[in-house]
Amino acid sequence: MSAAYTLVLIRHGESNFNKENRFCGWIDADLSDVGNEEAKNAGEMIKKNGLTFDVAYTSVLKRAIKTLNHVLDALDLHWIPVNKHWRLNRADGLNKSETAAKHGEDQRSLNLGLQRILINCNCCTNPQVARVLPYWHEEIAPAIRSGKRVLITAHGNSLRGLVKYLDNIGDQEIVELNIPTGIPLVYELDKDLKPVKHYYLASEAEVRAAMERVANQGKAK
Amino acid sequence: MSAAYTLVLIRHGESNFNKENRFCGWIDADLSDVGNEEAKNAGEMIKKNGLTFDVAYTSVLKRAIKTLNHVLDALDLHWIPVNKHWRLNRADGLNKSETAAKHGEDQRSLNLGLQRILINCNCCTNPQVARVLPYWHEEIAPAIRSGKRVLITAHGNSLRGLVKYLDNIGDQEIVELNIPTGIPLVYELDKDLKPVKHYYLASEAEVRAAMERVANQGKAK
Repeated sequence: MSAAYTLVLIRHGESNFNKENRFCGWIDADLSDVGNEEAKNAGEMIKKNGLTFDVAYTSVLKRAIKTLNHVLDALDLHWIPVNKHWRLNRADGLNKSETAAKHGEDQRSLNLGLQRILINCNCCTNPQVARVLPYWHEEIAPAIRSGKRVLITAHGNSLRGLVKYLDNIGDQEIVELNIPTGIPLVYELDKDLKPVKHYYLASEAEVRAAMERVANQGKAK
Repeated sequence: MSAAYTLVLIRHGESNFNKENRFCGWIDADLSDVGNEEAKNAGEMIKKNGLTFDVAYTSVLKRAIKTLNHVLDALDLHWIPVNKHWRLNRADGLNKSETAAKHGEDQRSLNLGLQRILINCNCCTNPQVARVLPYWHEEIAPAIRSGKRVLITAHGNSLRGLVKYLDNIGDQEIVELNIPTGIPLVYELDKDLKPVKHYYLASEAEVRAAMERVANQGKAK
């Protein structure tokens, strides 16, 4: 099957975990200096690979929006439409360290991981995967089918929900997937929006190192 | 008549006049360091005055979009919807100095000023005032009537078109109006969206100095 469409996902980088409560209990932390650099690098990687976009989607949390702004800046694409939606937010207000501190390191098991993906949000009753999918089906997928080149900047949690759906990954397996921050993840999709292949815009070593950093963030400090 | 709605307009600040041609011949110059500072200050002025917004409108040119991003940053409002439209672009691709260089300083008269406002764009046949109005009537005015607090960041030229319409300013008089850059211009509107009053979020002396700077930009260097 040959690829008909290209979709790019970017997980926002490191944030300052400011305790600012946005509506619905979501914590709206800003990017740290490192996070800003990660976002700029993501933009440069996309530019170097000659990819461009017609429309972008992001969450309503500023660390994802600012990541997007850095990427649009690198690509000179500030003029494209940007759609922000809470369905692309991360599902809960706890980061991994907090989760570990609250539930105990030994409970950061498959079950807890699953819970983090499937956990209910404060303001809706849908689990994470189900929460992101209506926005995919109603807004993003039709844009891709219409020929628009789509960029999504979001959170580890919400992107994992989308990747789980796209690649039809099982409940056990998805828990082990740590999408690295700031490395563009390219999906080539067939005409039915099924993945033909996916790859990161970085070397395998860079991806592996970034995944380990992300996985280690989960250990309680 | 009492004010029912508040609308805020901001003209983007100083730009680096890079020669990058975007579609339609519009020149997509970036903000200079001074322009970035002007935009941040505009955000701080709005914050100090306790104003906030539910939705923002801007042109598709990056100096206006980046001005908006700075303001949203100061107000912690990155999450609100941002709508970008070419109808809020400036009408022509020449800045004042270029116009002066092309047409001669002595031709920077009332007529030339009028022409700059009413000039046709490369890709549409409507004059500037008529160009901005459909977007006002179809998108911005309905948003205001629905109770949304609206921010517009755009260009001297397109904001002048809007101000001409709102305040019903004559063709001769509008040419003399130099909206200062980076100073929020607040319009209080009645229920029919007619201005009750308008004012800048700065002292009279600051506004006058800024207007003079803008007027002097027009002199050929």
